[in-house]
Amino acid sequence: MNFHFEVLKTDSTGARLGRLTTPHGVVDTPAFMPVGTAGTVKGLTQQALGELGVQILLGNTYHLYLRPGHERIRALGGLHKFMSWPGAILTDSGGFQVFSLAELRKISDDGVVFRSHLDGSEHVFTPEKSIEIQQALGSDIAMVFDECIEYPADRERAAASTKRTTEWARRCRDYARAQSASGRTNVELSSNPGQSLFGIVQGGMHADLRREHARQLVDLDFPGYAVGGLAVGEPHALSCEMAAIATEELPKDRPRYVMGVGLPEQLPDYVRCGVDMMDCVLPTRNARNGCLFTSAGRVNIRNAKYADDPRPLDERCSCMVCRTYSRAYLRHLFHANEILASILNSHHNVAFFLDTMGKIRQAIALGVLAEFSSEFQARIAAGEP
Amino acid sequence: MNFHFEVLKTDSTGARLGRLTTPHGVVDTPAFMPVGTAGTVKGLTQQALGELGVQILLGNTYHLYLRPGHERIRALGGLHKFMSWPGAILTDSGGFQVFSLAELRKISDDGVVFRSHLDGSEHVFTPEKSIEIQQALGSDIAMVFDECIEYPADRERAAASTKRTTEWARRCRDYARAQSASGRTNVELSSNPGQSLFGIVQGGMHADLRREHARQLVDLDFPGYAVGGLAVGEPHALSCEMAAIATEELPKDRPRYVMGVGLPEQLPDYVRCGVDMMDCVLPTRNARNGCLFTSAGRVNIRNAKYADDPRPLDERCSCMVCRTYSRAYLRHLFHANEILASILNSHHNVAFFLDTMGKIRQAIALGVLAEFSSEFQARIAAGEP
Repeated sequence: MNFHFEVLKTDSTGARLGRLTTPHGVVDTPAFMPVGTAGTVKGLTQQALGELGVQILLGNTYHLYLRPGHERIRALGGLHKFMSWPGAILTDSGGFQVFSLAELRKISDDGVVFRSHLDGSEHVFTPEKSIEIQQALGSDIAMVFDECIEYPADRERAAASTKRTTEWARRCRDYARAQSASGRTNVELSSNPGQSLFGIVQGGMHADLRREHARQLVDLDFPGYAVGGLAVGEPHALSCEMAAIATEELPKDRPRYVMGVGLPEQLPDYVRCGVDMMDCVLPTRNARNGCLFTSAGRVNIRNAKYADDPRPLDERCSCMVCRTYSRAYLRHLFHANEILASILNSHHNVAFFLDTMGKIRQAIALGVLAEFSSEFQARIAAGEP
Repeated sequence: MNFHFEVLKTDSTGARLGRLTTPHGVVDTPAFMPVGTAGTVKGLTQQALGELGVQILLGNTYHLYLRPGHERIRALGGLHKFMSWPGAILTDSGGFQVFSLAELRKISDDGVVFRSHLDGSEHVFTPEKSIEIQQALGSDIAMVFDECIEYPADRERAAASTKRTTEWARRCRDYARAQSASGRTNVELSSNPGQSLFGIVQGGMHADLRREHARQLVDLDFPGYAVGGLAVGEPHALSCEMAAIATEELPKDRPRYVMGVGLPEQLPDYVRCGVDMMDCVLPTRNARNGCLFTSAGRVNIRNAKYADDPRPLDERCSCMVCRTYSRAYLRHLFHANEILASILNSHHNVAFFLDTMGKIRQAIALGVLAEFSSEFQARIAAGEP
C-alpha cells in the first residue's frame, strides 16, 4: 500500500499518535516537517537530516518550478533522486509563494498569472498546472492549489476566496485522477506513481466558513487534509481555534496538516487540536540570523554575554551541536560570518523542533500531554537559559 | 613524548614517508593540512573533518588574535577546546597576513605596526608577541614570526629581509624557551605545554640566500622547518627549485613544511623535493566559487553543461559528495546560492586533496611515486571529466 494512515491512540485532549505510511517510508505523527525550499533544507546535508531522524520534508513547487525547473527534475528521476533524499517529501502547491513572493498580474477563476521574483518572467499557475508540476517532482504528498488571502480579510472576501479554492481543489483532484487513469507511463506522468493529494481548508478567521469549507473538501474525498491560511499574523489563540474548528469536521481516519506553524511552544497546542503534521521555516530561517530555540526560550547568539560562555547552547539538548560546541564558539562563528555558524545553528534548531515533536509523541503515548505541555511552555516562558 | 618525527622510508626521488607525533595525535606524512582560518575550516563541521580523516589543520594567528582574541581562547582552554577539535593544530605566526591583509604602518627590526583589516584599529606584532599569542592558542606546532616579501624581490631586498627573519627566528626561539623555563603554570603560559616551534626558511627566489638562510636556521636548532615565501606568483618550476634547495640543507630527521601550496597536480612535485607537510586555502576558497578539483582536472560547476548531468562530480572519487549527489544537483545548489553548495563543494575539494596525499603516501610505500605522479598529472592535464 502506497499511502496509509493509522491512528494509534487518541488522548482526552484530542491529540493523536499516528503512523503515516508513504512510498518513501513511515512517518511517526505528530510530525514536524523541515522546509527544503529549493531542494535542500538550508544549511543541512541530507546525511545530517538522516542523522537527525527526519522522516519527511517539504519541497516548494513555486521555487523548484522556477529553478531548476520541474521538467529538468522529472528527467533526472524526480525530486527524491535529484536531491538524494530517501525519505518522504511533501510539496506545497505553489499557491502561498505565488501570493506572497511573486508579483501578481491577474487572478481569475482559471488561475494566476504572475511574474517570477527571480527574473520578472511571466508564468501561469492553474490548479492543473500545479498538479502537473508536483507530479513531475514526484513528491509523496501533493497539495491542492489554493488561494491564500491576506489577514485580516472580511467575510465577503473570505467567502468568495473559499468558494474559488473549493473549485480549484475539485479541479486538482479531477486532473490527478484523469492522469492516473490515462494509462501514460510513470515517467511521462509522474516521478512517483504513489503520490497522494491533500485538500486545504481555508476560510480566513471566520468559523462558519472554516466549517463549511472543511465539509466541502470532505465531500471531495481527499486522503488527507491541510488547514491553510493560519500563522498569517493572527493571535495564536485564534489560530488554534480555527485549526480546532476545521479538524472537528475532518474524518478521523485521515491525517491533518496545519501549514506553516509554529513556534516550539505552540506545537503542543496544535497537536491538542488534533493536528498530525506541521511545517515551518522558523528553525532554519531564524538560525541564519543567530536566533536559536532552546528549552529555556530563544537565545540570540550574537549577544556579547555569550562571548566567554563555555556552556553548551542548551544543556537539556543532546543534539550534535550541544554535545560538541560552546556558546562562545557559536557566537564567534556568527560574528566572523562563518558558514559553520549557519550549519550549526540550523542543525540545532531543526534538532530542537524534531526533539520537541518526539517528546510530544511520547507524552501522548504515556497519556501526559497536558502535563508535558504546561511544563515545556512554562520553561520557555521563563526566559533565556 | 610530545613531539616526535620518524621517517619510515625515503624513495629514490627523495620523497619521504613519515609519521609525526604531536600532543594531539599522529600525522601521517606527507600530509595536507586544511586551513581553518578563524577556528573553522570554512564549510565543514569538525565531525566532517573527522570523517574525512583530517589529522592536522591550520589556525591563523592574525585572524584569531583579532577575533575572538587570543586571551579569550586561552581562558576557554585553548584553540582545540574552543573549536572542539581533537586532532593536531598548526598555527602560522601571523606574518603572512600582516604583510598581505593588514594596512602596514611601520616595519622595523623590532616588529610590525599594522591596522586591523576588520576595524582599522592599530596593533603591534613582534616575534615575542607572535609566540605569546600562539602559546595562548595552544597549537601543537607554532611558527616563528617572519617577514614575507613581495615577488619579485631583488637580491639586496631579499638579503636584508632574510637577515631580519633570522634574527626574529632567534627571538621567537629564545622567548619560547624562556617561557618554558619560567616555571609559570600551563594556564598562564600556554594552553598546550607540548607546543613545538618551527623555523621558516625565506630568501626569495635567490638560491644562495635560500641555502644560507636554511643553514642559519639549522644553527638555531628547531624541531621542524618550513619553507616560506613560495606560491607568491613565481613559476611552479622555480617554486620547486627553491623548495629543493632549502630541503637539501635541512636535517633529514626533522619534518619539512612548504607553506601555502598548492594545486593537486603540484603536490607530488613538492613531495619529491623531500617535503612532508603542505597547506593551502585553494580547496575551500575555490569550492565557494564553484571551482572543483577532480581526477580529470578542474570543473566549474556553474557551467550550463552540467544542468542535466546525472553523473557524480568525479567518478573516481569516493567521497560523500561523489557517492551521493549529481553534477546537476551541485550546479543547481550553486545557482540557487544555497549554503549546501558551499558545504558540498568544500567537502569534495578537501576530500580530493586528502585523497591525493593518501595516494602519494601509498605510492611512496610501494616505490611507485614517479609512475603515480605522471599518471595523476597526465589525467588532470587531459581536462574536464
